[in-house]
Amino acid sequence: MGHSPAQDDASLPAAAPAAAGDGRQRGPRHRSYGWEDPAGSAATARELDGISFLREIVAGAIPPPPVAATLGFGLVSVEPGRAVFDLVPAEYHYNPIGSVHGGVYATLCDSACGCAVHSMLPAGAYYTSMDLSVRFLRPVTTGSGRLLCEGTVTHLGSRTALAEARLTGTGGRLYAHATSSCLIVRPGG
Amino acid sequence: MGHSPAQDDASLPAAAPAAAGDGRQRGPRHRSYGWEDPAGSAATARELDGISFLREIVAGAIPPPPVAATLGFGLVSVEPGRAVFDLVPAEYHYNPIGSVHGGVYATLCDSACGCAVHSMLPAGAYYTSMDLSVRFLRPVTTGSGRLLCEGTVTHLGSRTALAEARLTGTGGRLYAHATSSCLIVRPGG
Amino acid sequence: MGHSPAQDDASLPAAAPAAAGDGRQRGPRHRSYGWEDPAGSAATARELDGISFLREIVAGAIPPPPVAATLGFGLVSVEPGRAVFDLVPAEYHYNPIGSVHGGVYATLCDSACGCAVHSMLPAGAYYTSMDLSVRFLRPVTTGSGRLLCEGTVTHLGSRTALAEARLTGTGGRLYAHATSSCLIVRPGG
Amino acid sequence: MGHSPAQDDASLPAAAPAAAGDGRQRGPRHRSYGWEDPAGSAATARELDGISFLREIVAGAIPPPPVAATLGFGLVSVEPGRAVFDLVPAEYHYNPIGSVHGGVYATLCDSACGCAVHSMLPAGAYYTSMDLSVRFLRPVTTGSGRLLCEGTVTHLGSRTALAEARLTGTGGRLYAHATSSCLIVRPGG
Repeated sequence: MGHSPAQDDASLPAAAPAAAGDGRQRGPRHRSYGWEDPAGSAATARELDGISFLREIVAGAIPPPPVAATLGFGLVSVEPGRAVFDLVPAEYHYNPIGSVHGGVYATLCDSACGCAVHSMLPAGAYYTSMDLSVRFLRPVTTGSGRLLCEGTVTHLGSRTALAEARLTGTGGRLYAHATSSCLIVRPGG
Repeated sequence: MGHSPAQDDASLPAAAPAAAGDGRQRGPRHRSYGWEDPAGSAATARELDGISFLREIVAGAIPPPPVAATLGFGLVSVEPGRAVFDLVPAEYHYNPIGSVHGGVYATLCDSACGCAVHSMLPAGAYYTSMDLSVRFLRPVTTGSGRLLCEGTVTHLGSRTALAEARLTGTGGRLYAHATSSCLIVRPGG
Repeated sequence: MGHSPAQDDASLPAAAPAAAGDGRQRGPRHRSYGWEDPAGSAATARELDGISFLREIVAGAIPPPPVAATLGFGLVSVEPGRAVFDLVPAEYHYNPIGSVHGGVYATLCDSACGCAVHSMLPAGAYYTSMDLSVRFLRPVTTGSGRLLCEGTVTHLGSRTALAEARLTGTGGRLYAHATSSCLIVRPGG
Repeated sequence: MGHSPAQDDASLPAAAPAAAGDGRQRGPRHRSYGWEDPAGSAATARELDGISFLREIVAGAIPPPPVAATLGFGLVSVEPGRAVFDLVPAEYHYNPIGSVHGGVYATLCDSACGCAVHSMLPAGAYYTSMDLSVRFLRPVTTGSGRLLCEGTVTHLGSRTALAEARLTGTGGRLYAHATSSCLIVRPGG
């Protein structure tokens, strides 16, 4: 992702270290972050073809979406029919039972699938995710290290597309697999 | 959710207003929030039966999980086989194309399904979400207002459970539907 | 279903009794059945609104589709947004490991979801099933008795619909649950 | 598949030719077929490791399951973590709206996923399909020609496995994609 300096305020406290695992609470943690008004990127998305729009995000010329700042993930590369995101699991992603919440996996997979499809669309076309089916294969913790989520297009039709995503860690360890269908609306269609 | 004061620092700037829709960027936005070390709640989750644990979260006696603070959602009620979360959509939930990211819907649905199952488990048992299949039915924007996500248990077996979730807004308008399978590990099982 | 006499040739040998369970093979079984050319029903489907078309099948005025004869299931009732099929599990539905094959559950659920959506469409509109997500909750055997599969429409949009299906047996015992998205093409759309 | 002569009675009338497409019904069609008592294969499945059991089916030494005879599909090859089925679409697979019923796609995908997982299991272990999520990408008709459905194991854990299936036709044309989770029960587990 084009983690532009304006998005990440390094002077703010970093995410707290992982839980000590001793069962005692060690007090409150705080996090601050920033993002840009998404109206600008949404307007640009309507003007550019998909791959150009996404490359501008990778290059940092278009700000990443607010949700990427909120959850700390980013678009690291894109090519036609393929998009890769990354995330470093942190305590602020945790569920109440001691690991990263499935919704974080789902967000990455949904982004990877959607952007893989978006990368194939001409200017004036847009897509809507109809669904996401995500399979959770292993727990993710702060010890898992940086994760990559690669989305690829499985099928591209005139009105629908199917994409799949693989969430992997060090050594290609597979944490989740997902598929997603998108509805495509083409100009004049 | 038991939005305990310690979790929400009201002196920090609120989420920015919704995008103006005029296509011009109106500058950076900032958000700060806090959460508690989740090691405490994870330890308690191993000691209490599911419904008691979740009721303590609703009552504010156990802090909500970090991810709930990060995404601004909370558990509002729980009873055996049923859990309800809420969320007020904000700009920090947005995708790059002008609406709330599907991962936010997925996170709510995953929480609602998982907690509905958790509410049926005795002390010593635990569950793992195996998958989440979410259907996105309508776009959510900051104008959608407060959403509720109700999870219910469809089937409870000895080793697996199936739950479903409905994400609704004002007047019962349905924004998403999801199903999720959980693997259950019972004490001595 | 309108089990028209022409479809079921009662003079042919009935399905063999269930396996004895003693692990010894008791020789080959045979089954014969018939159906009508589906070109006729497909042409009628293009002329009638959905609920009228399906009611003609229930009444036996339009022959059931070939696959219903092949797998022995039928449409027993239909109303706007709801369709119910039935099936009596038999040995010819079995997988290699001693119970009814999941594809049989899937076929019933797909039919129930698709017909529930079809029942809401005006003449000239048609639907295509985009996917089926089926959850197998219990094994079905020849001892399970007659099953009902009820499909209902969860969401009907202009271009897509979502339906769900419940496969139940005696006493409402739930054997499977499914959801399915359909793409809708409306006249002039 | 080991289409053993005893399974397919060549003296019986073949499946009727495809519908003429002129909208007129051309009279009833009939089909007869046979299968073996599945109690034998189910008993053998409990004794052999998965790959040996499936290879015996390919070789024709263990009869194919009844449902394969009913729907006319067969296992054509198997290796550890991979199973391939074939089917020649025929009129008896048709839905009421003029193409092969989605349940037929689902049955092939469920078989391919299940057998890919089964091929990895030692003697004494068994699996249960928990779900099947199938995406229908193109209509299949009698003109589509022979289809292959390849199942592969995506993830194999101690208690669960994930498999995916691809249904393709001539030239690798993709007709459907599916994923399926299985619960695994291991001896002494």
